[in-house]
Amino acid sequence: MSNPLAGIPTQESEVRSLDRAHVFHSWSAQAKIDPLPIASAQGSYFTDYEGNRYLDFSSQLVNVNIGYQHPRLIAAIQEYVAKLATIQPAFANDARSEAARLITELAGPSFRSVFFTNGGAEANENAIRMARLHTGRPKVLAAYRSYHGATHGVIGLTGDPRRWGTEPFTVPGIVHFWGPYPYRSAFYSQTPEQETERALQHLRDTIMVEGAGTIAAIILEPVVGTNGVLVPPPGYLAGVRQLCDEHGILLIADEVMAGFGRCGEWFAVHHWDVVPDLITFAKGVNSGYVPLGGVIVSDVVASTFDDRVYPGGLTYQGHPLACASAVASIEIFKDEKILENARFLGTDVIGPELEKIADKHPSVGEVRGLGVFWAVELVKDKTTREPLVPYNASGAAATPMNDFAAACKARGMWPMTHFNRTHVVPPCTTTEAEVREGLAILDEALDVADSFCDA
Amino acid sequence: MSNPLAGIPTQESEVRSLDRAHVFHSWSAQAKIDPLPIASAQGSYFTDYEGNRYLDFSSQLVNVNIGYQHPRLIAAIQEYVAKLATIQPAFANDARSEAARLITELAGPSFRSVFFTNGGAEANENAIRMARLHTGRPKVLAAYRSYHGATHGVIGLTGDPRRWGTEPFTVPGIVHFWGPYPYRSAFYSQTPEQETERALQHLRDTIMVEGAGTIAAIILEPVVGTNGVLVPPPGYLAGVRQLCDEHGILLIADEVMAGFGRCGEWFAVHHWDVVPDLITFAKGVNSGYVPLGGVIVSDVVASTFDDRVYPGGLTYQGHPLACASAVASIEIFKDEKILENARFLGTDVIGPELEKIADKHPSVGEVRGLGVFWAVELVKDKTTREPLVPYNASGAAATPMNDFAAACKARGMWPMTHFNRTHVVPPCTTTEAEVREGLAILDEALDVADSFCDA
Repeated sequence: MSNPLAGIPTQESEVRSLDRAHVFHSWSAQAKIDPLPIASAQGSYFTDYEGNRYLDFSSQLVNVNIGYQHPRLIAAIQEYVAKLATIQPAFANDARSEAARLITELAGPSFRSVFFTNGGAEANENAIRMARLHTGRPKVLAAYRSYHGATHGVIGLTGDPRRWGTEPFTVPGIVHFWGPYPYRSAFYSQTPEQETERALQHLRDTIMVEGAGTIAAIILEPVVGTNGVLVPPPGYLAGVRQLCDEHGILLIADEVMAGFGRCGEWFAVHHWDVVPDLITFAKGVNSGYVPLGGVIVSDVVASTFDDRVYPGGLTYQGHPLACASAVASIEIFKDEKILENARFLGTDVIGPELEKIADKHPSVGEVRGLGVFWAVELVKDKTTREPLVPYNASGAAATPMNDFAAACKARGMWPMTHFNRTHVVPPCTTTEAEVREGLAILDEALDVADSFCDA
Repeated sequence: MSNPLAGIPTQESEVRSLDRAHVFHSWSAQAKIDPLPIASAQGSYFTDYEGNRYLDFSSQLVNVNIGYQHPRLIAAIQEYVAKLATIQPAFANDARSEAARLITELAGPSFRSVFFTNGGAEANENAIRMARLHTGRPKVLAAYRSYHGATHGVIGLTGDPRRWGTEPFTVPGIVHFWGPYPYRSAFYSQTPEQETERALQHLRDTIMVEGAGTIAAIILEPVVGTNGVLVPPPGYLAGVRQLCDEHGILLIADEVMAGFGRCGEWFAVHHWDVVPDLITFAKGVNSGYVPLGGVIVSDVVASTFDDRVYPGGLTYQGHPLACASAVASIEIFKDEKILENARFLGTDVIGPELEKIADKHPSVGEVRGLGVFWAVELVKDKTTREPLVPYNASGAAATPMNDFAAACKARGMWPMTHFNRTHVVPPCTTTEAEVREGLAILDEALDVADSFCDA
């Protein structure tokens, strides 16, 4: 019998033409895109068919935290798939059992169990369902400038333009509030401390007028991801936790992007010693080598469903191969001190170097972040803080950012740009030398951004 | 460095205890379940830690169409993961390109492209979103006695009790109608032909009173799956297609369970030569070895999004390893004539044998199906057709079905039971001898069901 993969094309032209003909791409007008075919990837780099190699400062969609093709993780997948690729959720499976144990342990002592899903959207879908059933309350509070996934149940939580195209077909009962963002305060704050105080007052007022007794949960990204790497100012997360406790509201931490090393911790909330009731995860749990996500359920919430049926599930829940890859990835993170590397890169390399870059470039309004999770916010003018491009700019209005991104790519670094920002989000396994190489490219490319600043 | 899978437990007791401690199971009260740990699986069988081997007449969740651990599919996964486990959706990837080409080709000439997802729920989520945006209309019609997934956007489509626990947090604009079910006609039909005519009249009337101009799509399972293996009577699907055409309504075929061999065809609609506008798939596309699903988009719908941004996506969309496994699975299906085997089993083995079983057992009210997709409907009385257990029975009320299932398991066959039915849904690769072995067990176990019949 022939190799059943033999039909996969080997020439770039065919990969590209089949893609254009038959792959319906996300978040796109299909006739207006020309996706670059990628031939291979290793460590912190990926390579196209012409041999151009890119240092990945985006970790794909901020998910390949362990880097590409980690040899031990690849070997583990090869080993486990030979044992048992799949078994349905109603059985028990060794890899699923161990993944659930490990992830619960990493989350902390108040957590009991894991409801596995295929990805982050489904994790948030189930987290809000659990919260509503646990509390018996209908509403969920979510932040503007957030992303929680694209299925109908969670796109409504999302506080960015990706929600717009789906409205009004979102689930009822979602209320948006403003989170802290010291650089562009919604509360006219002058300091991070004031931002914390005022953002908490805003949330307290929102709870008051919406009615605490109607609110099941507050969901937030502990460090807001795609919408700006918004690191919470001191005391904010603890303050939200306290408000939740006062009113019997559950706190859901969406750690899909922030978790598993991105912030230099297993979970971002650990950085602030805040304990949510539910944590959702995906991406970094196994770097997306096999699709996996889930909800980590606290003992308090889990106990609600001891004797009461939980109404949710999916065919590939707790997928054995995906769970095995999570077990392997977590063990490799521990063995190879990958969290420590992410922390070191943040505190000793990226942070200090970005500060220097900010001082040097008129287009850099602010840099912020931790671990391997950083944003460089680009402005027309440091004083007015006017964004280099408008909110949700596209077409000609986005030229400054597009030209900046092209300059990065031409120099061999793949950036993650969003609105008027570029994020520095390399794999957690990136070496210091690689990070410095990428930051040097960023430094050069920012000259392009500078050229669009007000004189 | 140690093997990163070394922590996975090897003893049944530990697999079980970790599962009970840390795995939050779907559709369950957590304290009331005791999931059986499965040690291994091969072909049509899986085996527990005590060495009990079960012939799988459920194909897990009706998804391992190629059987367990197919050696060529396992080898293909091992080969491709060594090349490139993952790359994000905005790039082009060889396996994704080829999977999209193959799947589009299998669907037929009116289809252009594939929007990949991680599973069936997300596929349906995106299909209804596409339909609403393509038509500019708000409503979606879905059938009672259906299942379309458990995320908020599609659990509302679902016409079975799994929806209840989620209400009212479903998206607005969903209307349910009754589909054909000759054995328990909602329309007092005496023949299948009459059922078709009356079910179409019911649908026509529903469209009339809901307002054709408000309806984006009709979604249905061409052969209803978990809710009864309801094979459409002659002319029904063609009639629905015609109603859609008359009113500019899209037809979405949910082939998550029915597709990729289950009905002996690549897609169930091929059995009736009906062409939907969108086809959703998952499960059989790669037998769930790696999570994968998607929407197959017709040229007409795809063209809407040539110049207009489609608002949806997910991190693992078009996952390279998942797509590679789909390519391999489809090639293996072709090489090994697996569709032909499924057809043969249906027409020459399962169908005739189930008829004999039906004649023999007072508890068998009806058998129906095609390919490897069959239902045996159990009744208290063949004349009254009263179900052996009530709709959605649990606890003591479900005893007859539970006892029947236990009798199957005790004899080494794992049945798929639902309400008052047992489904005969083995892998498409099951041999004739294996099917006969399973049917002999079914025959014996039905004596238990018979004992609950009215005297």
